[in-house]
Formats: sequence, C-alpha cells, structure tokens
Amino acid sequence: MRTVNEIRVGDRASLVREVTEADLALFAAASGDTNPIHFDEAYAESTFFKGRIAHGILCASFLSAVIAGKLPGLGTIYVSQTLKFRAPVRIGDRITAEVEALEVDPEKNRVRLRTTCTNQDGVVVLDGEAVVMPPRRKIPAEQLEEIARRREALEQSLWEYRNSVLERRRAAEEAIRASLE
Amino acid sequence: MRTVNEIRVGDRASLVREVTEADLALFAAASGDTNPIHFDEAYAESTFFKGRIAHGILCASFLSAVIAGKLPGLGTIYVSQTLKFRAPVRIGDRITAEVEALEVDPEKNRVRLRTTCTNQDGVVVLDGEAVVMPPRRKIPAEQLEEIARRREALEQSLWEYRNSVLERRRAAEEAIRASLE
Repeated sequence: MRTVNEIRVGDRASLVREVTEADLALFAAASGDTNPIHFDEAYAESTFFKGRIAHGILCASFLSAVIAGKLPGLGTIYVSQTLKFRAPVRIGDRITAEVEALEVDPEKNRVRLRTTCTNQDGVVVLDGEAVVMPPRRKIPAEQLEEIARRREALEQSLWEYRNSVLERRRAAEEAIRASLE
Repeated sequence: MRTVNEIRVGDRASLVREVTEADLALFAAASGDTNPIHFDEAYAESTFFKGRIAHGILCASFLSAVIAGKLPGLGTIYVSQTLKFRAPVRIGDRITAEVEALEVDPEKNRVRLRTTCTNQDGVVVLDGEAVVMPPRRKIPAEQLEEIARRREALEQSLWEYRNSVLERRRAAEEAIRASLE
C-alpha cells in the first residue's frame, strides 16, 4: 500500500491472469450475465467474433485487482474508471493488467492511472483510465500481517474452488464430446 | 434483441439483483480480486467504509448484463463504458441496474446509453455511460428459441451453484460464530 506521497508519475504495477472456462462461469454466476456469446459455442460461431469470448467486464476486474492489490494497494478508494473494449478476449488468453500513474495530486489525494489489459500476443484488449484515492495512512506492520494471513486463507479456498469448477466444466465437456462420437 | 433502427432515444431497460455473500466470493474467484475490504470484517470496520463493501466492478457487471440481455440485447458489441463509483454497495443491497438510450446513430450503428446502478434506498451507487453497437440483423425465431433453451439450462445450473456457495458461506460463518461463543 502506498499513500499519495509515495507515488510518482510513471510508477507501474501489473498482474498476469489466464482466463479460464471456470472464470466465465464464476463471473456469470456472480453477475447474472449469461450472454450466449460467452457460453454457447454454436451461437458464438455465428457472430462477428466467430467463437466464444470472455465478458469484457471480467477483464476490467483484473485492473481493479491491480489497483486494490498493488498500486496504490490496500485502502485505495475507487473513484472512476473508463473502459474501451479494443479486442475480444478468448478462453485461454493470458492477460496482463497494468496500471501506470499519469497524475498525482497530493492536495486532493487523487491519482490518475492509465489502465491497460494486453493479451499474450501484445494486443491491447482493453484500455482506459482510472481515478483513485490512495490510503491516507499506513496500516501498522503487525495488523498488515494479520490481514495478509486471513487473505491468504481466503485465496487458498477460492483457488481450490476455481479449480474444482474448472474440473467440473471440463468433465461436462468431455461427456458432451463423448456422447457425440 | 433490437437493431439500431428499433431503438429510440429515451428507451430504457433494467434488472434488479440482490448482492449476496456468494456473489463476492464468486467474483473474487473469477477476478482474483481478494481485497480485504470485501471479505475481512475486522479490517473493513477500520476503514472509511466502516464495514465490508462489494467490488465496484461487480456492479458494473450488472450493467453489462442489461446491455447484453435487454437493450440492445443479444448480439450487441460493447465499445466503451465509463464508471463513476458514487457510493458503497453492501451485502444484501438490492441493486437496480438501468440503461437508457441517450443517442442513436443508425449510420455508424452506435447507441450511447446512460448507465445507472441504484440501491434499494434510491441512492445512485454507480453511474456513467456506455457506447454499444446493436446487432446488425435479427436472429430467426427458431434459432433464438434454441439459444434461449440452452441458456436456460446454463442459468439453472449457475443458479443452483450460486445457492450452494451461499449455503456453504453461511455454514462457515455459523461455525465461526459458534466457535466464538
């Protein structure tokens, strides 16, 4: 976590995330967005995209994860975000979500960030800008460790959970394929 | 689904969705965003928000669901979205996500929409604008029925799934509470 006085124009942070079949199902369950373009191969093949794509907002959520997790990090308040959907994201794509400080205003405690998602081929799939309020003060190291410990436990359980969804979706697809042979 | 010629300025569509404990977990599993403000009550109590809040982008995903599902509906291509996070969303909030056509450009096949999320108390929690490309042509009724049928099956399984997550999270919380008594 960094306060506004610890951020310089040009500072960057990023994460890399592979978009899986499980992520689309989890995202649809959370959002209610079950648009067939994400799930229905037969329909998706007939569209402009010639196949299934990930939810655009799923990619945006990776940017939010970088902001809340890295720059400025814990305690950041999200003020606004602009998103331009530049290219489709496919299942299996490895997305790099990156933020870069464009403007730092200590007086108003605001930072403007360039926010970009790029796929494994270097294609920008999503870009835009965010405005955020960095945390006002640092959390004592001891409390931070305690928070990190609890977060790790959550992440472990969510990770196992995501993998179990992935397994189940793969098994279901296998079964469909087998029944068609 | 509506083509650009079937949309008039002022046309609206909306959905209502209750934000549950399960949605936060599903969203975190999909996005990797495990910010403690969403999960760690002790930490969240110590922040500006005085308690846990939902992921801002989760709310944005409800807007995407209205766009892809209702106006313009199936076959819409998402061009851009702006988001202003106006107020926190809490677990249990009932969010109305609404879109309204502000500008219709048949020549470029673009529609500009006002996009708003409002909570059960009438507080705007998120607003902004989207630009979308409505579907170029209608899908034949027979094919549409087939797509709807497959979608229904998916929705049913995701719904059961979300409920099972909710059950498990409730049980886990019960266990924690019981162990503290």
